[in-house]
Amino acid sequence: MIDITGMLSGIGSNTFLLAEVNEAELGPFILASVLLSLIIIYLAAKIGGELCARVNLPSVLGELVGGVIVGVSALNLIVFPEGAEPIHSVLMDVVQLTANLDADALLAVFNSQSEVISILAEIGVVILLFEIGLESDLKELIRVGPQAAVVAIVGVVVPFVAGTAGLIAFFNVATIPAVFAGAALTATSIGITAKVLAELQTLSSREGQIIIGAAVLDDVLGIIVLAVVASLAKTGEIEITNVIFLIIGAAVFLVGSILIGRLLSPLFVSLVDNMQTRGQVLISSLIFAFVLSYIAAAIQLEAILGAFAAGLILAETTKRKELEEQISPIADMLVPVFFVTVGAHTDISVLNPLNPANREGLIIASFLVVVAIIGKVITGFTVFGQEGINRLAIGVGMIPRGEVGLVFAGVGAASGVLSESLDAAIIVMVIFTTFVAPPLLRIVFNQDDDDPGLPTDADSPSEMAEATAE
Amino acid sequence: MIDITGMLSGIGSNTFLLAEVNEAELGPFILASVLLSLIIIYLAAKIGGELCARVNLPSVLGELVGGVIVGVSALNLIVFPEGAEPIHSVLMDVVQLTANLDADALLAVFNSQSEVISILAEIGVVILLFEIGLESDLKELIRVGPQAAVVAIVGVVVPFVAGTAGLIAFFNVATIPAVFAGAALTATSIGITAKVLAELQTLSSREGQIIIGAAVLDDVLGIIVLAVVASLAKTGEIEITNVIFLIIGAAVFLVGSILIGRLLSPLFVSLVDNMQTRGQVLISSLIFAFVLSYIAAAIQLEAILGAFAAGLILAETTKRKELEEQISPIADMLVPVFFVTVGAHTDISVLNPLNPANREGLIIASFLVVVAIIGKVITGFTVFGQEGINRLAIGVGMIPRGEVGLVFAGVGAASGVLSESLDAAIIVMVIFTTFVAPPLLRIVFNQDDDDPGLPTDADSPSEMAEATAE
Repeated sequence: MIDITGMLSGIGSNTFLLAEVNEAELGPFILASVLLSLIIIYLAAKIGGELCARVNLPSVLGELVGGVIVGVSALNLIVFPEGAEPIHSVLMDVVQLTANLDADALLAVFNSQSEVISILAEIGVVILLFEIGLESDLKELIRVGPQAAVVAIVGVVVPFVAGTAGLIAFFNVATIPAVFAGAALTATSIGITAKVLAELQTLSSREGQIIIGAAVLDDVLGIIVLAVVASLAKTGEIEITNVIFLIIGAAVFLVGSILIGRLLSPLFVSLVDNMQTRGQVLISSLIFAFVLSYIAAAIQLEAILGAFAAGLILAETTKRKELEEQISPIADMLVPVFFVTVGAHTDISVLNPLNPANREGLIIASFLVVVAIIGKVITGFTVFGQEGINRLAIGVGMIPRGEVGLVFAGVGAASGVLSESLDAAIIVMVIFTTFVAPPLLRIVFNQDDDDPGLPTDADSPSEMAEATAE
Repeated sequence: MIDITGMLSGIGSNTFLLAEVNEAELGPFILASVLLSLIIIYLAAKIGGELCARVNLPSVLGELVGGVIVGVSALNLIVFPEGAEPIHSVLMDVVQLTANLDADALLAVFNSQSEVISILAEIGVVILLFEIGLESDLKELIRVGPQAAVVAIVGVVVPFVAGTAGLIAFFNVATIPAVFAGAALTATSIGITAKVLAELQTLSSREGQIIIGAAVLDDVLGIIVLAVVASLAKTGEIEITNVIFLIIGAAVFLVGSILIGRLLSPLFVSLVDNMQTRGQVLISSLIFAFVLSYIAAAIQLEAILGAFAAGLILAETTKRKELEEQISPIADMLVPVFFVTVGAHTDISVLNPLNPANREGLIIASFLVVVAIIGKVITGFTVFGQEGINRLAIGVGMIPRGEVGLVFAGVGAASGVLSESLDAAIIVMVIFTTFVAPPLLRIVFNQDDDDPGLPTDADSPSEMAEATAE
């Protein structure tokens, strides 16, 4: 027989309410709530982005702030189910105006809608990293590889050591929570930095490529650090085999996918050239990007690493320009979902100094913010053998912790090792670094523009490579 | 506090870190399964589409057949949860290779993945209808409005009366199930027809616009017929107020949205012209399309009607060309998800005559197929006042029942009024009309091309309108 219930709802069911709620009846309501969520997300992204663009700030900052406004901190329109705690969704109130669902059904629709928006946000950041990979230059990345590696490693070690030691020495924090907070200081949000670089059109500059290379390595290091501290928090020990598995997996994946990908890319181009139906370049490339993303996710890395590798490989083919044009509207559609939901997840009430409960957290947060910024800014000054490079820009580019920092705070809170004030302090640090980095990046790159010699010099290798690729 | 669980599932922590199964832990697996589903869907769509293009069949037929192959009929890769019955997902077996989830967690991932793919499919058909609206010509649609209305009404009344009466007279079916089966014969799949017309580049011909107009009206009529027969099946009575509400709602929505939309579109254009950030035309248009889709869904119509209306309105602005270019990659990405999942939902085992259980259904199905085809083909011959129009093409364009027919079969099966053989017969009729219409449409439109006088005549009004719009 045909799958009737699925067809009707257009969809499936919420896992936990399967028995009680007739999924068939909920399908149209889930679609309606997803459409309404997207309307709100796009409005928040566009209004925030346009306002920022008008005061000469990067529009991604506007998308994050727009997300904060529609999210859990203010309007409660875009909120996500949070474990046991009940949460109030104003969006569901709007849907309920015409839907008249009972409480169970409404909860099922809310959960499904949140699930879909979360996955759209994740596909958004996958597409963003694919686009960043496409706009990057593999040869330049390899050339600046050693510098990027030093930037990444210094940017992990310094904030970790300084943060952990400082918390123990100045705030009498116990070792394990201090290690956890120190670990949260190591992350770099590749998404936010890459988006700002793209907006400033400095992605293909030498500084841009060092930042991207270091941020990708930081992502891998972050996964390893998280695995270490989480197992430390849970069992008090470090599972060495697990860590070794992750390191080998990451190395084999990044090197292997690029080597094999480069071998296979002529085959890819000739396959695409022989296709006759609409969207052949785009769909073939998406298949390739999603395969690498799936492999990266399956071996416990992150999907975005696979998408970035796919973009790097396809950037070397003759299809690059066509693909960039076609991926651009898709990125425009999906990437704001990611930034707005990152903002929507962020509860800025921890920043309110009038609430006495926040004060201890804010004091610790001030320390973490200082370590977070200094620990990354100094990385720029470790870059060797690059004359006249904008070292400050590189360091500033590594500042934003973004969604990666929030994952640390989340794992810490879930494992119960973090006190409430320390958890709040980490979140304040994440918010501050995330929101301060985009305008700072614009300032430090604009200074660079005043020196007429440098941009040309920095841009030329990638421009040459681009000309060769076409 | 920050929304930690959502954030975690939203971004990808390593799963082995948390003790119990919860949503946070499943996030990366849901993303991985969605990516794997999309890979399979794109492969099925591209391989099917390319093979069909090579034998001169519409590629949408290849996407449907590709869906059947990866779906519940054959490979069980893209399957959907089906009420109480357990279902085997080969895709989940693949995910499980690297995931090692327990049974509950695996089911939760499967359900979430199905949910996301179903919503992506629905957003796909929303984008398709938006694109069809953009490529349509409101003035031409209004001009052929009376003819389209006659085609729509005849195409609903004739199959309904002939089907219901025939089932009662020849097959001794009781009245209510006969009415239900008759109702299932009334639907037209606007998605499939519109996609084939776009592929044949006959969408803006007069025939194309009559078909689109009639299919849109058929969609509205279908919703009304479904509401009537569903309440008839449930209570034995027809809820007149409900029907009147639907009719008034549909009329007010379609006329109102187009009138208000045309008034507001100069404002829209000047707003977009003043924006400075990336994707301004696309995102503003998507907000507009999703708002109308949401309103249509909220008043119990279908989201696709709102998307179509939005496309029609924006087609009259100066942004049409830019928008068509930008919406095209998004349609390439999302529309195949719709067609492949329609195919994946279709269980062709009911077509096997070697299974004795299918025989009664197949005999009834033969009757339904004949009524389904004749009942729609004759509609072309009711078109008045249009000299030299391809009447056969109009009738053939109304044949495919597609996903709309499956909804009828689903509601019938869920309400328990349909016997198993009658339900199977409806499904066979839906499969046959859906799969036969695309190649037939190509044949009847190609005949038209042989007559050199007609295409020019039929194309000119819309081409003129297009030139004016730009």
